[in-house]
Amino acid sequence: MNYQEIFQEISNELKGFDEIGQVATYIPALAKGNPNKFGMYLVTEEGHEYAHGDTEEPFSIQSISKVLSLVYAFKLVGTDLWKRVGVEPSGSPFNSLVQLEYEQGIPRNPLINAGAIVICDILISQLENPYDDFIRFVRELSGNPNIQYREETAASEKECGYKNNAHINLMKSFGNIDNDVEQVLDFYFYLCSIEMSCKDLAQTFMFLARGGKNPLTNKRVLTAQETKRINSIMLLCGFYDEAGEFAFKVGLPGKSGVGGGIVAIYPDQYSIAVWSPGLNSKGNSSKGIKALEIFTTITQSNVFGPMPIFDELEYE
Amino acid sequence: MNYQEIFQEISNELKGFDEIGQVATYIPALAKGNPNKFGMYLVTEEGHEYAHGDTEEPFSIQSISKVLSLVYAFKLVGTDLWKRVGVEPSGSPFNSLVQLEYEQGIPRNPLINAGAIVICDILISQLENPYDDFIRFVRELSGNPNIQYREETAASEKECGYKNNAHINLMKSFGNIDNDVEQVLDFYFYLCSIEMSCKDLAQTFMFLARGGKNPLTNKRVLTAQETKRINSIMLLCGFYDEAGEFAFKVGLPGKSGVGGGIVAIYPDQYSIAVWSPGLNSKGNSSKGIKALEIFTTITQSNVFGPMPIFDELEYE
Amino acid sequence: MNYQEIFQEISNELKGFDEIGQVATYIPALAKGNPNKFGMYLVTEEGHEYAHGDTEEPFSIQSISKVLSLVYAFKLVGTDLWKRVGVEPSGSPFNSLVQLEYEQGIPRNPLINAGAIVICDILISQLENPYDDFIRFVRELSGNPNIQYREETAASEKECGYKNNAHINLMKSFGNIDNDVEQVLDFYFYLCSIEMSCKDLAQTFMFLARGGKNPLTNKRVLTAQETKRINSIMLLCGFYDEAGEFAFKVGLPGKSGVGGGIVAIYPDQYSIAVWSPGLNSKGNSSKGIKALEIFTTITQSNVFGPMPIFDELEYE
Amino acid sequence: MNYQEIFQEISNELKGFDEIGQVATYIPALAKGNPNKFGMYLVTEEGHEYAHGDTEEPFSIQSISKVLSLVYAFKLVGTDLWKRVGVEPSGSPFNSLVQLEYEQGIPRNPLINAGAIVICDILISQLENPYDDFIRFVRELSGNPNIQYREETAASEKECGYKNNAHINLMKSFGNIDNDVEQVLDFYFYLCSIEMSCKDLAQTFMFLARGGKNPLTNKRVLTAQETKRINSIMLLCGFYDEAGEFAFKVGLPGKSGVGGGIVAIYPDQYSIAVWSPGLNSKGNSSKGIKALEIFTTITQSNVFGPMPIFDELEYE
Repeated sequence: MNYQEIFQEISNELKGFDEIGQVATYIPALAKGNPNKFGMYLVTEEGHEYAHGDTEEPFSIQSISKVLSLVYAFKLVGTDLWKRVGVEPSGSPFNSLVQLEYEQGIPRNPLINAGAIVICDILISQLENPYDDFIRFVRELSGNPNIQYREETAASEKECGYKNNAHINLMKSFGNIDNDVEQVLDFYFYLCSIEMSCKDLAQTFMFLARGGKNPLTNKRVLTAQETKRINSIMLLCGFYDEAGEFAFKVGLPGKSGVGGGIVAIYPDQYSIAVWSPGLNSKGNSSKGIKALEIFTTITQSNVFGPMPIFDELEYE
Repeated sequence: MNYQEIFQEISNELKGFDEIGQVATYIPALAKGNPNKFGMYLVTEEGHEYAHGDTEEPFSIQSISKVLSLVYAFKLVGTDLWKRVGVEPSGSPFNSLVQLEYEQGIPRNPLINAGAIVICDILISQLENPYDDFIRFVRELSGNPNIQYREETAASEKECGYKNNAHINLMKSFGNIDNDVEQVLDFYFYLCSIEMSCKDLAQTFMFLARGGKNPLTNKRVLTAQETKRINSIMLLCGFYDEAGEFAFKVGLPGKSGVGGGIVAIYPDQYSIAVWSPGLNSKGNSSKGIKALEIFTTITQSNVFGPMPIFDELEYE
Repeated sequence: MNYQEIFQEISNELKGFDEIGQVATYIPALAKGNPNKFGMYLVTEEGHEYAHGDTEEPFSIQSISKVLSLVYAFKLVGTDLWKRVGVEPSGSPFNSLVQLEYEQGIPRNPLINAGAIVICDILISQLENPYDDFIRFVRELSGNPNIQYREETAASEKECGYKNNAHINLMKSFGNIDNDVEQVLDFYFYLCSIEMSCKDLAQTFMFLARGGKNPLTNKRVLTAQETKRINSIMLLCGFYDEAGEFAFKVGLPGKSGVGGGIVAIYPDQYSIAVWSPGLNSKGNSSKGIKALEIFTTITQSNVFGPMPIFDELEYE
Repeated sequence: MNYQEIFQEISNELKGFDEIGQVATYIPALAKGNPNKFGMYLVTEEGHEYAHGDTEEPFSIQSISKVLSLVYAFKLVGTDLWKRVGVEPSGSPFNSLVQLEYEQGIPRNPLINAGAIVICDILISQLENPYDDFIRFVRELSGNPNIQYREETAASEKECGYKNNAHINLMKSFGNIDNDVEQVLDFYFYLCSIEMSCKDLAQTFMFLARGGKNPLTNKRVLTAQETKRINSIMLLCGFYDEAGEFAFKVGLPGKSGVGGGIVAIYPDQYSIAVWSPGLNSKGNSSKGIKALEIFTTITQSNVFGPMPIFDELEYE
């Protein structure tokens, strides 16, 4: 089967898929999402691209932006970054505030909200024009000059962002936020509001499958060592409280967002993005995970090695 | 460089290594450990074996046994296992009791103490002669009929096992322990007391690099699917509160014990065990992690893909 | 109105009282309790006694015993006691284990389970024959030589005492339990199993209303200073997570038990015991609290000063 | 001894008192406080007044204002208040955020910061001109028309109020804050900034010793029932994590502030205020507590009944 056929096969298998979940409703900008949208986009090491479904339509990338801001900050300050944010999984979110308090305002990793907020604080300190510089960075990676923040989404998020406000104020009380709290949160909500298509996302994340080199320009974004760091963080912390399940089912480093997008990379092979707005109970795209599970099973591409499709069910 | 040369290279690089850490002292059986012991043992897919240093000397495998008991229980009860224990990372241990209480007595994963205790409870329910059956299972995997429990170690552990006692009683209060508390804890401490050499460990874990098949007998221990489950749990939860750091530095599924042993596997390629009793602040073998880091860097074998040894340091 | 008339008045007012709550069911010995039992017994400074209802029938005093063991231990070791247990309220019980861990195994106060367990540990260390010595102490205070432990109740409690087991093991891990865990818990469960009547309880606690002197023998049990300590702990910590509500409604130092008993004292005036097995959602006797509220309102006797019965409802 | 002589006696006893503690330094307005200031002021039921030391000098009342805002809100909304804030002690503050999260944004009581913030939210909703109305309320109680907010102090507090910000945002996320977060916090910090003298405080709180009637105007502020509620909350929750110790040593309902002030009332007898800026490790005036302890011991006035000054030390 070639990739296009595999996409078709996945599409067939998912026809009866009825655990499509709920579209995120906590902000109006997301609640309006059409649950029937579905797209998959693949970019390979050799530069081939494969599309299926709604792959050109931009949607809110939400938490997926946390990886991009992390990469940018890592590029700017190097390993000094780890003085301000950890690299370990965070456990369940029920006690995220007490954990942050116990660990003196140092978030467990950069992909939980508190961690991503610290990253925003760093970017504001480091960049002349954080909003312009960041969107330019994303456009360069994606090759798409039209990628934009969505002001309306950012404003919605801000209106109900009280928990994030609680987190940033707690970190400020420990001295782990340098800039004005409002300024940092505003930037954070803008980053979440960026809209990209499956095509944009797959292209943008391809450098993480190429040891750190942007495939479009062949310029180095991160060193191979730094890339490994980002990929390992994604594998362990990229899917809220479902990282273990995703590692088992899909077995690739990746990141999801409550807009229904997921992007994942297979080192030296490919970058793949899926989009389906319905979320499971853990906040990840329900159909998106299933699609990726089928894809990595058929292609036998996951970091835990080739897995035979037809496994012997009985022990000998 | 062939593997033997790589081992020599690692040995050379580690000569000046002075962050060797402290030998675990909380039980006498471990405190007597010689901090200068060091061994590495490699078993490849093709069946070749490579040894360096103290590879034949048995040491206390401690928490490494948690993987073996998990595999055995998984083999016996299948996916019903996940009704009683989770598959997600656990965050820092400071609030392990409150987390267990919040999640109604269901431990986050089978490699934290509470989770391993549930596994012991399952084995006791399922097996006629749990102690005999289990040691036979380990001997079969390792090919070494002399592997033993070490009663003295188990007795020491029991004497200071109050936190484990707190955990099991809390789980019992939630109905997640079926057997007598004392009986389960005794079995748990015995499993931790098993002594194996680097050679034994590398051989024993090789089936996890072979999609579930025992290389010595070619009998299937787990299905490929089940093997992937175990490997993903090891990658995300195998190194206490240092899983993220290990995933970055070494990039392989594995498990450590406070006896100073670490075993790791590279799917379809090899199983490797190291032993150095000095522990870092997170409770993992300090020199052992360094040795594995050098090994996976030189051999470019980690699940995040080939990493060039001589990375460009400057961005172009 | 004299006291007997007040008792009659309370009885009348409670005729329609229908929030009688549930009898505790977690152990069989309590579940068999008759929810319609009701008794009140008053002992005054002058030695007068007033009875109403089922005042001679013994019931399980449960947590009320925590005050008696505290008094006995305080008598034996003095203010050294406060090195091992605090005197502050404990907040809600949801995180009692994490609080105990945070405070290094020192329970917040002697009236929560963990604190009472430490007290038992002290008594075992201090007394030749803890079981005999303790029951003799209670008999002397009550003037009733027939007061007994109820073995059946203690055995029931032990069978489901996993949370207490979790607490004691955690404290043992911090070095705050000197004796064998089983031995301490056994004693703890026996103390809870003691059976006393309303009459016994009111008589027994009278010394706390008399600055520490046993009214029957005129022997000093505690100094006035020590008595004040016990009374202040009862007022702040005597009613689980309902101490604030009880202080407002009744306004007296006291202690409740899940057997449905409550005993309270008014310094220099009286000791009063009530019994009604139905419990409210916080685990205190529902009708018992109501009866005491009416009593202290009619008699204008609460530590917050005389309160007019017919209060002006409108502000002037 | 008359009261003036008792004050002199206390002054003598405290001459060598060297556990005077540290002046609060977290805001500049407090750090400038003179640690040698000391004042005591007593107002009796009969209207007599007794002064000793620096009783006319205004200082920052800080958390003492929490009682006044509670009284005002209680007066306005009655028992509906308890839907939005509890009446139970809160345990140690280490996990105040997680407790607030666990209890769905309902603070444990109105004298912890989170609870006082909810009270401010209620006052803003209820009052036309909250700032003017509140200061007028305080001036009426104190009889002093010159009592003022101290803008400089409020501004200082705001600058470092990140933890309060974390709390209010968490409550807002649970729907327990109706007004704008900034607006509520501003009001909260202004209330803390009010400056009063010992004389002002003793006079102001006298209505709580008189069953709710303002002694100056004889107008009812609260009903006797409502007054009992406030007094019981003060006794159980008025001294941070030292409520149990204060109840034992002093035995009166009261409230302290980090400005070094303490006010306490003895129902139907008196209101007393002390001021000494040095704080103990729990944040309460060190010398202030000692002075009150001596006062209630000499006068045998505490809610736990008369305590003989010269207690028999030996048991008979």
